[in-house]
Amino acid sequence: MATSARFVSSLRRSALSSRVVSRTQCLRLAPQVRRITSATSEPHQPDSKGGLDGPAPAKTIKFTSESYPELKRDPKYAQLTEEHVKYFKELLSSESACIDGVTKDASEDIEPFNSDWMRKFRGHTQLVLKPSNKEELSKILKYCNDNMIAVVPQGGNSGLVGGSVPVFDEIVINLQKMNKIRSFDEVSGILVADAGVILENADNYLAERNHIFPLDLGAKGSCQIGGNVATNAGGLRLLRYGSLHGNVLGIEAVLPDGTIVNDLCTLRKNNTGYDLKQLFIGAEGTIGIITAVSIQCAARSQAVNVAYFGLESFEKVQEAYRTAKGQLAEILSAFELMDGRTQKLVNKVTGKKMPLEGEYPFYCLVETSGSNTDHDAEKLQAFLEHVMETEIVLDGTLADNQTQIQELWSWREGITEVLGHEGGVYKYDLSIPISELYDIVNDTRDRLTEAGLVGDGPDYPVVDVVGYGHMGDANLHLNIPTRRFDKAVEKKLEPFVYEWVQKRNGSISAEHGLGVTKKPYVSYSKNETMMKLMKQIKDLYDPKGIMNPYKYI
Amino acid sequence: MATSARFVSSLRRSALSSRVVSRTQCLRLAPQVRRITSATSEPHQPDSKGGLDGPAPAKTIKFTSESYPELKRDPKYAQLTEEHVKYFKELLSSESACIDGVTKDASEDIEPFNSDWMRKFRGHTQLVLKPSNKEELSKILKYCNDNMIAVVPQGGNSGLVGGSVPVFDEIVINLQKMNKIRSFDEVSGILVADAGVILENADNYLAERNHIFPLDLGAKGSCQIGGNVATNAGGLRLLRYGSLHGNVLGIEAVLPDGTIVNDLCTLRKNNTGYDLKQLFIGAEGTIGIITAVSIQCAARSQAVNVAYFGLESFEKVQEAYRTAKGQLAEILSAFELMDGRTQKLVNKVTGKKMPLEGEYPFYCLVETSGSNTDHDAEKLQAFLEHVMETEIVLDGTLADNQTQIQELWSWREGITEVLGHEGGVYKYDLSIPISELYDIVNDTRDRLTEAGLVGDGPDYPVVDVVGYGHMGDANLHLNIPTRRFDKAVEKKLEPFVYEWVQKRNGSISAEHGLGVTKKPYVSYSKNETMMKLMKQIKDLYDPKGIMNPYKYI
Repeated sequence: MATSARFVSSLRRSALSSRVVSRTQCLRLAPQVRRITSATSEPHQPDSKGGLDGPAPAKTIKFTSESYPELKRDPKYAQLTEEHVKYFKELLSSESACIDGVTKDASEDIEPFNSDWMRKFRGHTQLVLKPSNKEELSKILKYCNDNMIAVVPQGGNSGLVGGSVPVFDEIVINLQKMNKIRSFDEVSGILVADAGVILENADNYLAERNHIFPLDLGAKGSCQIGGNVATNAGGLRLLRYGSLHGNVLGIEAVLPDGTIVNDLCTLRKNNTGYDLKQLFIGAEGTIGIITAVSIQCAARSQAVNVAYFGLESFEKVQEAYRTAKGQLAEILSAFELMDGRTQKLVNKVTGKKMPLEGEYPFYCLVETSGSNTDHDAEKLQAFLEHVMETEIVLDGTLADNQTQIQELWSWREGITEVLGHEGGVYKYDLSIPISELYDIVNDTRDRLTEAGLVGDGPDYPVVDVVGYGHMGDANLHLNIPTRRFDKAVEKKLEPFVYEWVQKRNGSISAEHGLGVTKKPYVSYSKNETMMKLMKQIKDLYDPKGIMNPYKYI
Repeated sequence: MATSARFVSSLRRSALSSRVVSRTQCLRLAPQVRRITSATSEPHQPDSKGGLDGPAPAKTIKFTSESYPELKRDPKYAQLTEEHVKYFKELLSSESACIDGVTKDASEDIEPFNSDWMRKFRGHTQLVLKPSNKEELSKILKYCNDNMIAVVPQGGNSGLVGGSVPVFDEIVINLQKMNKIRSFDEVSGILVADAGVILENADNYLAERNHIFPLDLGAKGSCQIGGNVATNAGGLRLLRYGSLHGNVLGIEAVLPDGTIVNDLCTLRKNNTGYDLKQLFIGAEGTIGIITAVSIQCAARSQAVNVAYFGLESFEKVQEAYRTAKGQLAEILSAFELMDGRTQKLVNKVTGKKMPLEGEYPFYCLVETSGSNTDHDAEKLQAFLEHVMETEIVLDGTLADNQTQIQELWSWREGITEVLGHEGGVYKYDLSIPISELYDIVNDTRDRLTEAGLVGDGPDYPVVDVVGYGHMGDANLHLNIPTRRFDKAVEKKLEPFVYEWVQKRNGSISAEHGLGVTKKPYVSYSKNETMMKLMKQIKDLYDPKGIMNPYKYI
């Protein structure tokens, strides 16, 4: 600390940016810096029973029906017959639109649609349909509804909660063939695109036109915008551009009875009654299937800067965030929190030199995006000087080119991967009022420590209890890296974590959704009235219950 | 034009800001510059029959039931009795919470609740209730539901479509006693407040804490935030902060059966099922009554600048908007459109010297709000130089202090008042895809001109056809100032305007809502499926139909 303090005091007299850039330039770059987010990079999750299902060899993915033995196939749903398959084949415009495992063996072709990318969920479907347009989809759904055939809507299948794969033999309806960008208005910035357009394709299309998709996440290369909207994806740009509830202007969807809902409004303002499209945003495919969206897109920022800070307490982190909101204001595009334990772990596992010389209990990554490079650098530097002079932060470094920016981001984005280094990880994706955001980490650590479960060495199942996340969104990722599965740990964690969150009116799912995994825990974030009202909506739109069954509702 | 061109060319060589500021300083200031918006400043509207009901003396407000003779009191609703009133009086905590016109004459006290501020709508209620908390409101609604008593929720009663006043004898439930700010978190910027808090009070409270309410409109001194949310108010800050669907994080509401819905989430992210609060945003009190909201508020901008441009065509206006989006990007907070006819009218009626020397077919007002005065001025100046050098705009002026800013805004905000100068005005509040935004004005003018209805002098009923509005929101106010009511004009306007908007998938109500006035026209903006789905929701939440009857649903 003495060295750091001296360093910091000399910093205060020197030109901050030149100094910090030269320090950043000394950082070794990881060979493959991946831009990933916690929203889609959680490969080491315990299963619902607390088991530690990390990535496993291809042939050993456990069936969801085995991981969740309390789920039973509902006999009300029809078993698929040759006649059903014949109907679908005649209906669909191309042969490739139907993967038929009913009348022949197609298990290899079907497998990628039955299981998720984390290799954590696996269903028993024998039929995958890929409609090319809403009319085909309408006929499929009407037929399924008439014949009590259960379906699972599937986009890029990049979710984290098992929402987009079947549990039993539900038909998979995959949207990948509906992948056209329908229109873009460069004046209004409004994009209309099929649900199956891959997020990165949409963003690249917009980048060529100096606009930005108001959502960014690690799975952008595979996730589809229909799935993003259906799961109300959060991601990296939420702090700046807001949620999909504000940005999505219109939706085209097909209801279980085949009704085509055309609410594909391309207007920023439309006060003509209930905003029903909102129901589909975050419904996770339980009331209908989104076939297209219209969405407003901002002009793309020309200047991006990233700063990385060390702080002495969570109170100081809050102060830094408040100051950033005031001083960086319109150019603030990310404010990420990492505790010291996560950063030491990244340092230990990757061997990379830490961005700052001293060690601090808390770190923050602050990103700005604006239209003028000089202005943004000046604002960020003034902010940096202010927070250091007032000792809100104890040390900091500033990157201003793409390589340095990626390197600093890797200290935030690399956390997920290093956490699983010693075994598995218990992971919780929580929204908590910002003033208490980090308390859950301390409380959980105290609880596990008191129970003698945390320590160095093989006698202790728990390696550590750490926290990081999207400070600007009050979204904390509570993570408990472990050496092995231990029922005693699980019992101390649940329902403790959910009760803790419930007491503070937090959310047990900030951005991942509910899917299969959080089905038993919805009541911790929704009171009885809300549960009842949600069920009302489900029954109204999907009275036969064919849409994405066995999931949260 | 020659003078102007010379002026512009000299401009290009000089320092823009000093020149334009000095020109702005020459402008005479209107004695009472009012900050009003079209959202709440439409005093001269034709009634549904095309009549021109301007403000009239106090005792002559026509009953809505007379203006809209097709509306009949539904006999399914109970007539209020002394017993009903006795129940409510015992229930409410203070005597002032009940204005009883059932057991005695209270018409004078009740009148302000029966009629709207435009003096255009007037109901027949005999009872006003002002609950102090959600529990009282719950008991009131349950009793009304059990006894088939119709109710009208009422906030600040500043709407434009007759949504907040009774048509017949519906009880008025006014929220003014629920007016506490419950909490504000300075770190997250999340405000929780009762529905009856006046918008200006909320914004002043936030201003003291360096934050801003993400909504601003002319009626801020009287409208209530519960009413703002119930009507999904648009206003001046939408371009910058987005719609209430994105900013409102939670709602507390009471359903017709007395159920208290506690969805008062104070989290930016909460992916735990259907986002039901969205249904209440813009429902206009037809499915329940909002009692509190939580809303995210941005840090307040320290620097505000306003520029005013003259342009030669609507194509150039679009180009200017596209350029502003790119160059001003994160600091752009308003982009308003005014056609030359509206500006000449302001000039003619107020006698004020026009901000620019030449005359142009189109004008724009561009506002920036940011955290750094110098940076913003530099950005705006660079933008101004660019758009003038490339002849996107032909002339411009820049204000940078509050007085000059108000003066330039008065050329936009003063339009509504001057339009009614010669008689009445047919007004349409439309959302139209931005590329065709102004076409409706030309098409309507051509249509009325061809019919021989437009001209100078008393022989012609129509003075002019003009357009202005929120360019950034693609929200046009089509206005037809007239000398007198004429059935021939009305027949040429309707359903022409609605059909024109429908063909372009526009909206017949961008920001005003539907209320009573647009009840017959909803189908121009909502297709049959959407109408059916809306009715489903109405029936689900309000099966007995006691909530705000006779309105759009």
